[in-house]
Amino acid sequence: MYDLLIVGSGAAGLASGLYAGRYKLKTVIVLGDFGGATATAGIIANYPGVKSIDGYELMTIMKEQAACVGTEFKEGFVSKIERDGHCFTSHIGKEKINSKAIIFAAGAEHRKLGLANEENLTGRGVHYCVTCDGPVYTDKTIAIVGGGDASVKAANLASEYVKKIYFFTREKAIHAEPVNYERMKKHGDKIEIFLETELKEIVGEKKLKKLILTKPINSGVELVVDGLFIEIGAAPATKIPKSLGVILDEHGYIKVDEMMKTNVDGFFAAGDVISHFGRFKQDITASATGTVAATSAYEDNKVHGDLCDLHKLPQK
Amino acid sequence: MYDLLIVGSGAAGLASGLYAGRYKLKTVIVLGDFGGATATAGIIANYPGVKSIDGYELMTIMKEQAACVGTEFKEGFVSKIERDGHCFTSHIGKEKINSKAIIFAAGAEHRKLGLANEENLTGRGVHYCVTCDGPVYTDKTIAIVGGGDASVKAANLASEYVKKIYFFTREKAIHAEPVNYERMKKHGDKIEIFLETELKEIVGEKKLKKLILTKPINSGVELVVDGLFIEIGAAPATKIPKSLGVILDEHGYIKVDEMMKTNVDGFFAAGDVISHFGRFKQDITASATGTVAATSAYEDNKVHGDLCDLHKLPQK
Repeated sequence: MYDLLIVGSGAAGLASGLYAGRYKLKTVIVLGDFGGATATAGIIANYPGVKSIDGYELMTIMKEQAACVGTEFKEGFVSKIERDGHCFTSHIGKEKINSKAIIFAAGAEHRKLGLANEENLTGRGVHYCVTCDGPVYTDKTIAIVGGGDASVKAANLASEYVKKIYFFTREKAIHAEPVNYERMKKHGDKIEIFLETELKEIVGEKKLKKLILTKPINSGVELVVDGLFIEIGAAPATKIPKSLGVILDEHGYIKVDEMMKTNVDGFFAAGDVISHFGRFKQDITASATGTVAATSAYEDNKVHGDLCDLHKLPQK
Repeated sequence: MYDLLIVGSGAAGLASGLYAGRYKLKTVIVLGDFGGATATAGIIANYPGVKSIDGYELMTIMKEQAACVGTEFKEGFVSKIERDGHCFTSHIGKEKINSKAIIFAAGAEHRKLGLANEENLTGRGVHYCVTCDGPVYTDKTIAIVGGGDASVKAANLASEYVKKIYFFTREKAIHAEPVNYERMKKHGDKIEIFLETELKEIVGEKKLKKLILTKPINSGVELVVDGLFIEIGAAPATKIPKSLGVILDEHGYIKVDEMMKTNVDGFFAAGDVISHFGRFKQDITASATGTVAATSAYEDNKVHGDLCDLHKLPQK
């Protein structure tokens, strides 16, 4: 029986493991894809306190910090969590682990176009986050694929850095908040918008070379750009929370209060899967919400920890 | 005219400077005491992503990161801020700086006993934060000076690490939430409570040696301990926000929403001075709230930035 089981090993999961260990909670992190979205994000230049670092390395440091304070790790993926009062049973393959609390930090996956080379070139010309990687393209030319409000905000932010933006949407119109759309239009030729135009191919081996479009623009169907930002939304990993009756916000993210509590006792959440900070998906906010979730799990353990012991889970 | 002036150079101020610079806001940080509470906190072992580091060094790294993206720095203290619509004028000595927005990150000062050697031995036996420094005293003996709910929670947390706690309050009774007080009592002899007993002297030169009490306990008026935690509250630096009509919570901290907005347009706040995260005062949460405040300042600048230009501040 663990005091706490943490789902996910991105910045939120590992930071909560560090704090939980310091709080002396018997804690296990079920790793999933190690390092979450950060591990494959390439160079992280905007984590306060750490100068440029590879995301995988940053996650490795956080894992070591959590290990140092006694937090345990388990390879594998949580496929299901059952709840019985204040006790949780997590399924990892055929194994089951009981815990008195859960911190759910399984992240949100950037939606992908599903094109060949897309995964292969991620971090090498292909990106999913202008806030994170926009400054790399200062005075360069990029393409953005989007259509919704977030993609328009991304284009506006990218325009602070880049020389030229080709903006593609497969829709007949752009669906953004008027204030953001107005700002986008103010940039004039700097942001060229192409409706009902999709990418057919991403070309490049070690680095993005060019894009092939579904229909010709000024230059034909081929477009040479330095970077491509795919901004078609994100899918928070909420299948398990939903099955436990955890309430989501209107965008499908887990609703938490400012102490990372969900509506389900003993079930906390942190990182990219939550609605907090306006769904701002940065390593620094993921880490912080992880430490807050661990603090709440500790407080909860001291007050309600007995409930699960008394309950005497059936030995499965 | 700056887009943004940041008050304070602790983790919150510097992290917001990093993000504001990345957002291309013309930004200046008025340093105050460089590095805020972190710079003098000694070794920081609980900042996710950075293994043990001296607080001053961590703040130096954050400052360099902010400098790298063009954020400027100004020595001195902000003594007053005047607001005229969406424009702010900050007074630093005899100088005045105009800005379109403010991020207020001036922190909260731990209340001190005011004894000789107290400042001198801070970080060398004398501490103000069990969450930060408690694990250093694993299996050792400490004293806690307190009396309120936070000090009782600190004692409960410290009991996870230490062998023995002497708890002193000058009051006739302990004023804590019943649930926290009950937990404290459950520790039995591990936490020995002395009412109406104060510290008269902190003895030590390079390191804390012993305490002299105002009245004898078991061992007389002298008490040898490994560590002393002073948990008598914190005073958030809210004189300036109050003068601008910024609303505080019932504990005297600045009320912000989850995007770090106060009730005053263009005035954002972050770090230890805010009520967010239950006033949890950690570097990681300060950094995160700083980055969120910068994001809100950027959004605000794009929507309302013109208001201040049009306004044409009188040249003072």
